[in-house]
Amino acid sequence: MPKEGLLPLKWDGENLFLLDQRELPDKILYNKKSTPEEVWESIKTLEVRGAPLIGIAAAYAMYFAAKSAPGDGFESFYNYMKNKAEYLSTSRPTAVNLFWALNRIMNRIAKSKDRPIREIKDLVKEEAQKIHREDENICRKIGEYGLQLLKDGYGVLTHCNAGQLATAKYGTATAPIYLAYEKGWKIKVFADETRPVNQGSRLTALELKEAGVDVTLICDNMAACVMSKGWVNAVIVGCDRVAANGDTANKIGTLGLSILAKYFGIPFYVAAPTPTIDLNTESGEEIPIEERDPLEVTQSFGKKTAPDGIKVFNPAFDVTPHENITAFITEKGIIYPPFKENIRKIFE
Amino acid sequence: MPKEGLLPLKWDGENLFLLDQRELPDKILYNKKSTPEEVWESIKTLEVRGAPLIGIAAAYAMYFAAKSAPGDGFESFYNYMKNKAEYLSTSRPTAVNLFWALNRIMNRIAKSKDRPIREIKDLVKEEAQKIHREDENICRKIGEYGLQLLKDGYGVLTHCNAGQLATAKYGTATAPIYLAYEKGWKIKVFADETRPVNQGSRLTALELKEAGVDVTLICDNMAACVMSKGWVNAVIVGCDRVAANGDTANKIGTLGLSILAKYFGIPFYVAAPTPTIDLNTESGEEIPIEERDPLEVTQSFGKKTAPDGIKVFNPAFDVTPHENITAFITEKGIIYPPFKENIRKIFE
Repeated sequence: MPKEGLLPLKWDGENLFLLDQRELPDKILYNKKSTPEEVWESIKTLEVRGAPLIGIAAAYAMYFAAKSAPGDGFESFYNYMKNKAEYLSTSRPTAVNLFWALNRIMNRIAKSKDRPIREIKDLVKEEAQKIHREDENICRKIGEYGLQLLKDGYGVLTHCNAGQLATAKYGTATAPIYLAYEKGWKIKVFADETRPVNQGSRLTALELKEAGVDVTLICDNMAACVMSKGWVNAVIVGCDRVAANGDTANKIGTLGLSILAKYFGIPFYVAAPTPTIDLNTESGEEIPIEERDPLEVTQSFGKKTAPDGIKVFNPAFDVTPHENITAFITEKGIIYPPFKENIRKIFE
Repeated sequence: MPKEGLLPLKWDGENLFLLDQRELPDKILYNKKSTPEEVWESIKTLEVRGAPLIGIAAAYAMYFAAKSAPGDGFESFYNYMKNKAEYLSTSRPTAVNLFWALNRIMNRIAKSKDRPIREIKDLVKEEAQKIHREDENICRKIGEYGLQLLKDGYGVLTHCNAGQLATAKYGTATAPIYLAYEKGWKIKVFADETRPVNQGSRLTALELKEAGVDVTLICDNMAACVMSKGWVNAVIVGCDRVAANGDTANKIGTLGLSILAKYFGIPFYVAAPTPTIDLNTESGEEIPIEERDPLEVTQSFGKKTAPDGIKVFNPAFDVTPHENITAFITEKGIIYPPFKENIRKIFE
């Protein structure tokens, strides 16, 4: 039996338990949440992170709100819930999944206006649990399709954390790895530490290790060396946004990895839930690159590692051109080139 | 007038001043040395680092020994000095340059046995100063040849510290940059931070900034992004060892950079003083790769950034195949392919 691994969020039917991701990798600490205010605080302070996870946590927070809603009339209940949804949306004003989940709950309430409040409260719980389960299913589907691209004994290199810790379960880039592990395959994973914020060493290395997967941590600049030794049979990464032609924005360092993989003849896969594919963005050139705080580079771990006043270039992500990508792994199947045609087909 | 920059070692004719490299980049602190014991301590505790520098410091330490040598007879003077050389060689038992410099001083003494002790003491000083000057000249020559490969306005990317801080002056990979700066050219340097020990952020970024050069610090995984923007016209790196066919061992990350440079059509240069070219090593396959302490990766910034007990692969360097190298910049000229023939020619 495989270990359950490190779940970022657990639901016991009435209470939410959130893994405090601020404490990782030092402490594995679950905090119980049973009010909207506790969940708001948790999102605000980054105790919970990862777009899908934030949506799930907010959906459960709406159930906590429903449970304690005063009165019996639909209108006053609806307004009370709408208020709580607005309040919860202020916890991370840039998170699309947050609004999406809150709207879904509110729509479910609106559609149930002829039913007793007591029943509507149960429907809110049902909807939150559905959102939770759907995310797990998307990841599991990505894992099942991705598994077809792996073999027992493969070495897999990954970058950043497109892992279980950012989703309900399995993660995206890590999903094929977890399913291979469940099958008893021996997969050897190399996790890039992913400077400057080290999501690879703090999160990916941790969650794979906790699940029992064979994982080796490397610095980002060691990937070429590891590939040159023949230890890597596939690279799998996540993505922030995929353009209609397949150009892919993902954590800084992904572009370089795609070039190394091409040089060494290693397939390069992008795990992409279909909501991250944006048909309105024609190509990577349209994706603006956000720059982040120079302090992340010069003293990200509490110690100054660069001279005062040094100029820094700290892009949050880079764009990998579609011709460097072997295939996309989505919950609806694997997409091979030509991407422009085949990405459209998957949405039909 | 260009600034002098950050010299790692200064000599006033009688005293040595060593930049305390353990304090970089936080403090710029020169400590005066005037006894062999002080220099021994300095090498031992890594106050002074870099192969050429250690040789120079040890040579000056021999002059300090000579100054305080008791008695007047040659034999007792020679034995006293031999003793001091043996003592100094224990400060870093793996440093080839250290033994080479100490032997050179002892040979100079042996060849002068018919001269008065007073004169021999001056010859020791002369030899130490010669060793110092010769290293500066090698670097300057590398700079002059390398300058032919650059143009005003170029962007140059470098990795690790093959800089002034490891040599008497100018450095190796940085020498063309300093000479371009002296000419008034606008060169824009990108310095990889160079995980896991961050020589790029702590040393290269510092020394270039102190000299007034336009330098931007990046994480190693940002090099591809910087190149994709067209900001890099040349990559220049140093080397630990060059094989007879041109395969080059250098700081981990160099191989990856060479592949990125090839992909983007950017020339990739290796600054190589001829003593680092080893004609007895036929190809890179013969160069063993040393692995270093996992702690460098898991908590090099003073804070734990990875889970306890995680497996780590931490190679000290990698091997760049000769076909990824555009040219070697040596103190005897630029070597272009075919390297097997042209490297031999430069030694003729």
